[in-house]
Amino acid sequence: MKGIIVYKPGSEKIANKAFTFLESIGIPVDIADKCSKCEKYDFIVTVGGDGTILRTLQQIRDCPPIFGINTGKVGLLTHATPENFKDKLSIALEKMEIEEFMRIECENLIALNEIALLTAMPARLVEFSVFVDGVEIDRLRSDGLLISTPIGSTAYALSTGGPIIDPKMECTLIVPVAPFKLGWKPWIVGKQRKVEVEVVGRHCLAIADGHTTLQIEPKTTLLFRKSKYPARFFKVENRIARIINMLRNI
Amino acid sequence: MKGIIVYKPGSEKIANKAFTFLESIGIPVDIADKCSKCEKYDFIVTVGGDGTILRTLQQIRDCPPIFGINTGKVGLLTHATPENFKDKLSIALEKMEIEEFMRIECENLIALNEIALLTAMPARLVEFSVFVDGVEIDRLRSDGLLISTPIGSTAYALSTGGPIIDPKMECTLIVPVAPFKLGWKPWIVGKQRKVEVEVVGRHCLAIADGHTTLQIEPKTTLLFRKSKYPARFFKVENRIARIINMLRNI
Amino acid sequence: MKGIIVYKPGSEKIANKAFTFLESIGIPVDIADKCSKCEKYDFIVTVGGDGTILRTLQQIRDCPPIFGINTGKVGLLTHATPENFKDKLSIALEKMEIEEFMRIECENLIALNEIALLTAMPARLVEFSVFVDGVEIDRLRSDGLLISTPIGSTAYALSTGGPIIDPKMECTLIVPVAPFKLGWKPWIVGKQRKVEVEVVGRHCLAIADGHTTLQIEPKTTLLFRKSKYPARFFKVENRIARIINMLRNI
Amino acid sequence: MKGIIVYKPGSEKIANKAFTFLESIGIPVDIADKCSKCEKYDFIVTVGGDGTILRTLQQIRDCPPIFGINTGKVGLLTHATPENFKDKLSIALEKMEIEEFMRIECENLIALNEIALLTAMPARLVEFSVFVDGVEIDRLRSDGLLISTPIGSTAYALSTGGPIIDPKMECTLIVPVAPFKLGWKPWIVGKQRKVEVEVVGRHCLAIADGHTTLQIEPKTTLLFRKSKYPARFFKVENRIARIINMLRNI
Repeated sequence: MKGIIVYKPGSEKIANKAFTFLESIGIPVDIADKCSKCEKYDFIVTVGGDGTILRTLQQIRDCPPIFGINTGKVGLLTHATPENFKDKLSIALEKMEIEEFMRIECENLIALNEIALLTAMPARLVEFSVFVDGVEIDRLRSDGLLISTPIGSTAYALSTGGPIIDPKMECTLIVPVAPFKLGWKPWIVGKQRKVEVEVVGRHCLAIADGHTTLQIEPKTTLLFRKSKYPARFFKVENRIARIINMLRNI
Repeated sequence: MKGIIVYKPGSEKIANKAFTFLESIGIPVDIADKCSKCEKYDFIVTVGGDGTILRTLQQIRDCPPIFGINTGKVGLLTHATPENFKDKLSIALEKMEIEEFMRIECENLIALNEIALLTAMPARLVEFSVFVDGVEIDRLRSDGLLISTPIGSTAYALSTGGPIIDPKMECTLIVPVAPFKLGWKPWIVGKQRKVEVEVVGRHCLAIADGHTTLQIEPKTTLLFRKSKYPARFFKVENRIARIINMLRNI
Repeated sequence: MKGIIVYKPGSEKIANKAFTFLESIGIPVDIADKCSKCEKYDFIVTVGGDGTILRTLQQIRDCPPIFGINTGKVGLLTHATPENFKDKLSIALEKMEIEEFMRIECENLIALNEIALLTAMPARLVEFSVFVDGVEIDRLRSDGLLISTPIGSTAYALSTGGPIIDPKMECTLIVPVAPFKLGWKPWIVGKQRKVEVEVVGRHCLAIADGHTTLQIEPKTTLLFRKSKYPARFFKVENRIARIINMLRNI
Repeated sequence: MKGIIVYKPGSEKIANKAFTFLESIGIPVDIADKCSKCEKYDFIVTVGGDGTILRTLQQIRDCPPIFGINTGKVGLLTHATPENFKDKLSIALEKMEIEEFMRIECENLIALNEIALLTAMPARLVEFSVFVDGVEIDRLRSDGLLISTPIGSTAYALSTGGPIIDPKMECTLIVPVAPFKLGWKPWIVGKQRKVEVEVVGRHCLAIADGHTTLQIEPKTTLLFRKSKYPARFFKVENRIARIINMLRNI
């Protein structure tokens, strides 16, 4: 078993502590400030916040389990603090209990939280037409449109009138960003549904988890689907309690 | 195979037509204006609107498949109109393709759409504390609180800021009615989750699908769970398209 | 100058303290647990919460200035606590700086916060048609409809998707309670606008500030107008800060 | 009396018709595709949509009355169509009945609808702190923040959870764009209130009516105030009916 530590710039000190600790208990580990070829490791330890985990996941399809040491603020996805990581990491590596969370794909983008289609020009609307299994469920002009996972319901989608969705569920949340329209609703559809978005008017950006950006030309139809590559994490006791705690702190 | 026709008062004429038609094709059928002992039949034909179906379901645990002839307005749950029911009913009875939709239970109540906890005194707030798997996700004073199924997301829950949920999904939607609070969210949790609501302040009413009412005393904790008795319907081609059509007409 | 102390049952002790205090500084004062003929006094001291003030105002058209000693919870409208009322009341009576807040009228109802049109039967919708200066701005089926003042924007209207409105403004806020409709909006119209509501379907209740109830028959059209009788209060330093403080505590 | 015709590129033909018509009735008029030194004219005729009017107003402080011939889509601010403008324009110039609508200012920006503070980087939040008369009413991270006029309540603010506000009112609407926060509310404050926004985190853009952009550095505090230069329009019969009509068509 070999792991890799991926750290956020500025968190080198904690990352080195984690490195020393893992070596001290006989587990070989590499260390890097970004993830390349991380798929070959047996586990990943991130040192940073949720952003570091999301950034790391951008580089990974077949995902080794992740353990997050939180040096950031909210930390919905992390497992331990710099103070208590030794115990928690030891236990996690011993038990190797893994949770999987659905990711969403579109073109070559993959996201744990959401793929956001956003206007490239602030204050200029983009027009979208949204289809579920071939049925147009909405057509609107807006600042953007989010195709989100359940775990993403507490990320960008939280800002746009979406509900909180149990991260243990597998489904797709579709919710516009600032729609210039009366009478829209967030939609939640089964993971097997085919979600398509036609970018009708001007071009827009597709942004995966706030990190990877693709320019989308007008008249493009994008297909969103559940990825066959879930994100994997070491198990956290009570996901509902974690969400409640996070909501209290944003 | 024997069926029963249940009709809404005022729709006797169409009900009689359905009766004559079923006899003419050799299918024995009873007829009544309300459902009693309907579980023993092989299928149910309702004549009325969604309300007639909901009222009928209140009397049924183990549910024979339902075919709805719509004489009402919206008709999300119905299958045919008085004009076209002969063809559609024949085909349905021949194919016997059935769809199941999750129902929700609490105490002795069962609901296809929602169980609504509502203040018994207009303009007086009730206080609720909501738990998911033992974790308090919200505590609020409001006119009421809905525990809704996916198919109920287009019923009462539509009025309260809830999202539209794919009726093919199985999950529980929790959403308050007019909460006197900043910072609440609709919650959607997996069907296996234990949803409990503590009625903290004054007593309230629990109303299943707008039909069956139970008085709830203060300091009661109610447990909501997926019923093992789903509602059964003859299959409808495209549920998403049906929802879109219904949303356009409310 | 003669005042009256109106107290909430249970707050007699503080009320008596206020009585003794006012006598001790040579100001004659009556005391009662409810307001009758309060208009003839030069000022009113309420002992209770906002509810006591709202209840007192239900009996008053031409309003003497009110000073509230808060023995309740939120206290957006009150001026002092049982601990600090002596100083604050002395200063208030000396300065006699008065604030006026718009009230709204309909039929023989008058309200400082809102007149709520509410279904008389829980879980049964009422249909409303809303007109501003003769133009139908909305038609909807809902649990209710609020016609609120600016100061009422932090009362019932807060629960229904309305905005916070500066209490120094004079205007009318129209907002439905749990509308079974996509695509509604709260409306804010100038105080000179004629707001009319037609109760289309079944009968409903009109409730002023949660206290006075009127039964409204179907096919009634109600006219709402700014009352020529504002509520009068002794001045409070910073109304915006008061609202912020109150929002933090609900 | 001398006027100027300002037209949207592509609407030259209608603009020329308007020019010929005005000359034919003896009213001297200039013609241009954009507004420079328009303040010196006695009236302005725009040929285009609401966007052409908003663009024209960006160049004007002391505003001659505007008459809009609508060649665009929604046309909330316009007065006539290419088909009926001759009669309507004649009458308008004869009666010279003028309506004024409040504009809002910040730094050197002026806006009829809104000044939008928006993230310069899609999917990256900006942090704002909002003050009314020196009291912090909200602090949040969001895609943006709108400071809107009543007439702007049917523009960008419509997309963000704001209410519809009577255009005859004078007040300031403050509403965030996609706030990453539970528990915010739109605020409406009197026109005399001092509204200040501190841009806490990264820099952002301030965009007036979607046309004029200013880069705002972090740690800047912006003051918003009612402009002493209202927009002036030839009178339109029924503003409420116009809004209803516009809402039906977006």
